[in-house]
Amino acid sequence: MTTQSAWAILNHMVQYSRKLDSTFGALADPTRRGILERLGRKDAAISELAEVFDITLTGIKKHVSVLEAAGLVTTEKVGRVRHCSLGPRRLDDETAWITEYRRMLEGRLNRLGDFLERTREKR
Amino acid sequence: MTTQSAWAILNHMVQYSRKLDSTFGALADPTRRGILERLGRKDAAISELAEVFDITLTGIKKHVSVLEAAGLVTTEKVGRVRHCSLGPRRLDDETAWITEYRRMLEGRLNRLGDFLERTREKR
Repeated sequence: MTTQSAWAILNHMVQYSRKLDSTFGALADPTRRGILERLGRKDAAISELAEVFDITLTGIKKHVSVLEAAGLVTTEKVGRVRHCSLGPRRLDDETAWITEYRRMLEGRLNRLGDFLERTREKR
Repeated sequence: MTTQSAWAILNHMVQYSRKLDSTFGALADPTRRGILERLGRKDAAISELAEVFDITLTGIKKHVSVLEAAGLVTTEKVGRVRHCSLGPRRLDDETAWITEYRRMLEGRLNRLGDFLERTREKR
């Protein structure tokens, strides 16, 4: 492997890891998950979201900017209104990480099961 | 619905939401995801984890306690050594939330596709 390709792989891994940080961080809040669920039904203006979740405009803007940074929401200003809609991220990497984790956990439990089975047979 | 059952449902929803907060929050850090991946292969003492991730014992203890609070890691003190292993959580609720989100996003994209298709036909 050349130094260049090693750096490319490392860079890709770092980017991938940062993406997971920002998405999982964005999802770790009930209001932010609520905003995504709401936008899944219909686009909304920032002011509508503030009303639905009964928090200040400043508060909702902070949540929306966290979601936007994670690629989960896109916003567009039309006149004086900022419209929000679901962003391009399909959470493929997050799904892959969790699936891999569950697979690994299952593997560990199976090995534990086998071990207990063998221990019982020996008695 | 009785007031009691309404409260029971509300309480369940709040607990469910808190669980998602703590898991997604726990997963939003590369070292914590790394600890889970490492424990997926083999249990480890806190001191081993500190060595693998090249951070202080205090630093690793903080990460492990976040994972423990989220039910992703269990620890047990044997003599002077604290052993860590993967916890009981299978991330079922997190998988369900992400799956539902992807389904919803797909629905929105399909509707957008249909709309564009109809608009093109009318031209």
